[in-house]
Amino acid sequence: MIHFRNDYNDIAHPKIIKHMQQCMDETHLGYGMDEHSKKARERIQELISIPVFIHFMVGGTSTNKIVISHILKPYEAVISAQTGHIEVHETGAIESTGHKIITIPTDDGKLTVELIKKAYTRYTDEHMVKPKLVYLSQATETGYIYQKDELKDIYNLCQSLEMYLFIDGARLGVSLTAEQNGLTIDDHAKYSDVFYIGGTKNGAMLGEALITKHPSIDNYLRYSMKQGGGLLAKGFLIGMQFEALFEDQLFFEIGAKANQMANYLKEKLKVHQIIFNETPTNQQFIKLPNQVIEKLNQKYTFETWEDHGSSKTIRLVTNYRTQKSDIDQLILDIKNK
Amino acid sequence: MIHFRNDYNDIAHPKIIKHMQQCMDETHLGYGMDEHSKKARERIQELISIPVFIHFMVGGTSTNKIVISHILKPYEAVISAQTGHIEVHETGAIESTGHKIITIPTDDGKLTVELIKKAYTRYTDEHMVKPKLVYLSQATETGYIYQKDELKDIYNLCQSLEMYLFIDGARLGVSLTAEQNGLTIDDHAKYSDVFYIGGTKNGAMLGEALITKHPSIDNYLRYSMKQGGGLLAKGFLIGMQFEALFEDQLFFEIGAKANQMANYLKEKLKVHQIIFNETPTNQQFIKLPNQVIEKLNQKYTFETWEDHGSSKTIRLVTNYRTQKSDIDQLILDIKNK
Amino acid sequence: MIHFRNDYNDIAHPKIIKHMQQCMDETHLGYGMDEHSKKARERIQELISIPVFIHFMVGGTSTNKIVISHILKPYEAVISAQTGHIEVHETGAIESTGHKIITIPTDDGKLTVELIKKAYTRYTDEHMVKPKLVYLSQATETGYIYQKDELKDIYNLCQSLEMYLFIDGARLGVSLTAEQNGLTIDDHAKYSDVFYIGGTKNGAMLGEALITKHPSIDNYLRYSMKQGGGLLAKGFLIGMQFEALFEDQLFFEIGAKANQMANYLKEKLKVHQIIFNETPTNQQFIKLPNQVIEKLNQKYTFETWEDHGSSKTIRLVTNYRTQKSDIDQLILDIKNK
Amino acid sequence: MIHFRNDYNDIAHPKIIKHMQQCMDETHLGYGMDEHSKKARERIQELISIPVFIHFMVGGTSTNKIVISHILKPYEAVISAQTGHIEVHETGAIESTGHKIITIPTDDGKLTVELIKKAYTRYTDEHMVKPKLVYLSQATETGYIYQKDELKDIYNLCQSLEMYLFIDGARLGVSLTAEQNGLTIDDHAKYSDVFYIGGTKNGAMLGEALITKHPSIDNYLRYSMKQGGGLLAKGFLIGMQFEALFEDQLFFEIGAKANQMANYLKEKLKVHQIIFNETPTNQQFIKLPNQVIEKLNQKYTFETWEDHGSSKTIRLVTNYRTQKSDIDQLILDIKNK
Repeated sequence: MIHFRNDYNDIAHPKIIKHMQQCMDETHLGYGMDEHSKKARERIQELISIPVFIHFMVGGTSTNKIVISHILKPYEAVISAQTGHIEVHETGAIESTGHKIITIPTDDGKLTVELIKKAYTRYTDEHMVKPKLVYLSQATETGYIYQKDELKDIYNLCQSLEMYLFIDGARLGVSLTAEQNGLTIDDHAKYSDVFYIGGTKNGAMLGEALITKHPSIDNYLRYSMKQGGGLLAKGFLIGMQFEALFEDQLFFEIGAKANQMANYLKEKLKVHQIIFNETPTNQQFIKLPNQVIEKLNQKYTFETWEDHGSSKTIRLVTNYRTQKSDIDQLILDIKNK
Repeated sequence: MIHFRNDYNDIAHPKIIKHMQQCMDETHLGYGMDEHSKKARERIQELISIPVFIHFMVGGTSTNKIVISHILKPYEAVISAQTGHIEVHETGAIESTGHKIITIPTDDGKLTVELIKKAYTRYTDEHMVKPKLVYLSQATETGYIYQKDELKDIYNLCQSLEMYLFIDGARLGVSLTAEQNGLTIDDHAKYSDVFYIGGTKNGAMLGEALITKHPSIDNYLRYSMKQGGGLLAKGFLIGMQFEALFEDQLFFEIGAKANQMANYLKEKLKVHQIIFNETPTNQQFIKLPNQVIEKLNQKYTFETWEDHGSSKTIRLVTNYRTQKSDIDQLILDIKNK
Repeated sequence: MIHFRNDYNDIAHPKIIKHMQQCMDETHLGYGMDEHSKKARERIQELISIPVFIHFMVGGTSTNKIVISHILKPYEAVISAQTGHIEVHETGAIESTGHKIITIPTDDGKLTVELIKKAYTRYTDEHMVKPKLVYLSQATETGYIYQKDELKDIYNLCQSLEMYLFIDGARLGVSLTAEQNGLTIDDHAKYSDVFYIGGTKNGAMLGEALITKHPSIDNYLRYSMKQGGGLLAKGFLIGMQFEALFEDQLFFEIGAKANQMANYLKEKLKVHQIIFNETPTNQQFIKLPNQVIEKLNQKYTFETWEDHGSSKTIRLVTNYRTQKSDIDQLILDIKNK
Repeated sequence: MIHFRNDYNDIAHPKIIKHMQQCMDETHLGYGMDEHSKKARERIQELISIPVFIHFMVGGTSTNKIVISHILKPYEAVISAQTGHIEVHETGAIESTGHKIITIPTDDGKLTVELIKKAYTRYTDEHMVKPKLVYLSQATETGYIYQKDELKDIYNLCQSLEMYLFIDGARLGVSLTAEQNGLTIDDHAKYSDVFYIGGTKNGAMLGEALITKHPSIDNYLRYSMKQGGGLLAKGFLIGMQFEALFEDQLFFEIGAKANQMANYLKEKLKVHQIIFNETPTNQQFIKLPNQVIEKLNQKYTFETWEDHGSSKTIRLVTNYRTQKSDIDQLILDIKNK
């Protein structure tokens, strides 16, 4: 099979594995108090112009759940795009901690200042929840990116409405390395209250690096991590991986490679006049007749995104291991349907 | 002031107060184990053709919260109209017990078989919640009624999809006594898994009578009531009130009177060609220019339902204490704007 | 039957009922925003030398649950005596909001500075919960009272450890009116962060008056009340009752009468050399052989407190309706066993 | 430093690392649906004489939290020894899912039929939680083992009281390989409703294998895992590790080695007449004067278990990497205090 299903289908990037092998004979302090986690924190801090607090988390759903329930009071709610990961694909994890998600329908999965403002103003008194945190994903679940100005505007709105901005960066790697994006990790620290740098979908075995500039969010966060089942006993494993990811630009290299393969795919789709929903990152969405999809299913892995009856939209994900020849083959098979 | 604000603005119907006075020198067992609660249960059971379990609850939000969290497993979710009381006006009470509400946009606040089926089929695997209970209000928050056939069809759908149907009957009184509705309390027992007869909005001081035919829902429900803060120490208070409500048809009399006043209001609005959103129960919705509303505000109480900029939709609620002269006066003031 | 079972077995004190009858034709704002609630608040404020915020709550368990979950962060815990109401008799209501109760075994149901300090220091890092609130009952579930100095010392300890002190005053009435207690409502406002004046067990139909001097606790408390199912639609009912309770000392009169009857009971028990566990309030505990208890059961209501095999401890509760002749009869029946 | 702090201070056993390296170029299905997880399940099933369901979990706290909240209804509670991991060292994780832990003081950290029965009978009605699950750890947090007969008796008691028995096997490895224990994995499947085989503390990077024979527990467990943040995207990582652990008896080899080192330690302590609390597994507890502990602290890592004022009990943990020379050195330093 040729794989376009997702960006987390191998153990880890060889450089990460190699780094871990080199640490095999060491003995470490547990729960993230080790030297590798410390070193990883230092490397991430170097990329950020303001002092921040950094915690290594186990995975995406776990992080979203822990952060949101750590910050909010019981009657406070999260604002999210209707396509947000917390709304669609976390089996009610946020609600399981007691909080309502206020969902906003969008055209492309991206929140805007106008949409947030409109949602916010509907909540007026104690018979309703109080919106207190905006959740957005960078890149979005639909493959798009918030530009620096968009982030900044949303952050300023949040500030003026006394809401927190939390950025789910499970796919931050492909966002930062997309063409003409002008975004840095530092921007995300500046224009959010808390965000994370995704490891799982960017070459690590597991782990996300959670970052906040606020002591008030950092305070007792380890209590919430432990209670949430997200304080890994062998926390040094995640520390080691981020240590490797932020040595010699490996993190960016992995994201860039996934985008290059996406660019090659987009180019080929255009050349062959296959209509698709173009995005700047490593997820592309193509609508194809059912019989084509059935044929592709025998040779390729991918996810069905939406069912339109006689046709379906499928999602093609590239990653740092995708080969040009895989894409060539796929295009051929779509054309020779 | 003349009151059209809601149907819970007086202590209680005089007959209820009178009944309570007659019980003043008695001594009762606590927590609903008393003789008055027993008698009230018997009177309600007489109206239902199948054996049921009956519990007296404190109020609407409390009942919704206790019932839903009692029935559902942590990963199971509720389906509700977007206008449902649990979604809009309970400050996230359902989510506070850990459950997601799957909301369905509707034209008029009423769920349909098609809408429920469509929502249900979107939830396919363990990355999403599992829809397990349909919540609907009779009458709806928008003043409409589910007819017997509609209820039956929704109940049959729920059965076939292995979902529960829970009917919020906070305003069941005005539903059962609306013109040409053909509905009985027995129908609600037959075509739901659990429902309640609202007392608070139908002449009682407080209290709702929760009814289920399923031993599996009745089992340990008193544990959930106690845990949820909804097992009143002086539970006999609620028992006495339902005892009075179901003696000599008082419950139906109170609902019928509210509807009669609504009918009088509707008639007058029509005669005077004031355009409004007509409903079969005691809530009517009129769109009026802001300056008219400002004037009415000085003399009448009512709720603003929706803001349209230069005009607003207001809600007028009649109840068993509403006078024809109140309505005549209101119409006059709308016309002489 | 003659009743020694509890202090909430009648509808309400006649003066409360009378006051409600006088308000029968009025129309009120819902959810505690009415004039009677306002008046009741003013009367309570008059008894307190510092400015406080007052909210009317539905019942004890509901209040404990709402207050504790409103104040605490997810990883924070409550310290309580092992005999505390929240630990023993609320079906896990506090845990249902996500919080651990740290329990302390005591001799008599009373916490002390030493016991609290010892419990507190066991919690040292993020692998454990963080103690943040001390819960105590005045009077205790065992009938005892915290003296002014004891309260003050515990409050000072809480201050120094940055913990809140929350006093469950379900039986505050009998505490304030016990002989030689020297306690006032004002003391409770001074030496706690939040407390309540119990209505249900002191002559009201239902309702507790929650009091806090801290704006930080008052903030958004109505959101927590609504979410917790504890914001009564006809909130004016509770307001009216506290209005009556704090007119002409009725609240104190009711508590004092219960204590007088307890004193009469204690005196008789002593005279007749029946050994019992003496307390300063309206609960007395007597250990009797099983066969005596069986006989008493036929004529009296009371609760069995503890089973010792061939004997049991029973609890006798007096209230403002207890008659001397009831007590005389009981003593006679115990002696003539 | 020489390490006696815990059994999870290295990356993983070399054979596990080696196995993972061999899988580096593969592409896997996510969320535990891969071939390695399947193979690992098969190997575990081979050790069990009844058909079971097996799920790979992220870590101990996460597993305890997910399993308990998956099984229990909101008003149901867990019975645990007062020293149980869920009670002491999980920051209220169980309570955060809404459930009370009923704690039992014990002499040695082991529950007995008598203790459980006594605790169970205290819970009699809806004003109290309902005990529904017994949690015990094998080995206990205090280093002891439940023998086969003890397990069987407790399981039979649970059956008769309609309670579940859940065994936390974070340290199952050292239990199964302790001298004269007569225990097998199969026994644990037979004499429990659900249990797990700990990976993290027995040579794996991370992961626990959860096992149940009941379809009713297996049903929708993946929903609870996802909601709880415990369904790892790269679930195949855990599958691979258990595949390695159950190839050629590696799992048992690792446990046995830890016990051998503990035996060597116990022998030396005895020879040198150092008094300690002997246990059959890899945790030994020695009470030493503070000044000795201070000296040891400069050269060894270990945890302080209890503070007695001028002396402390410390915990010494051996694992498969512990060297005899480490132990010799330690004994020498204790003697030459």
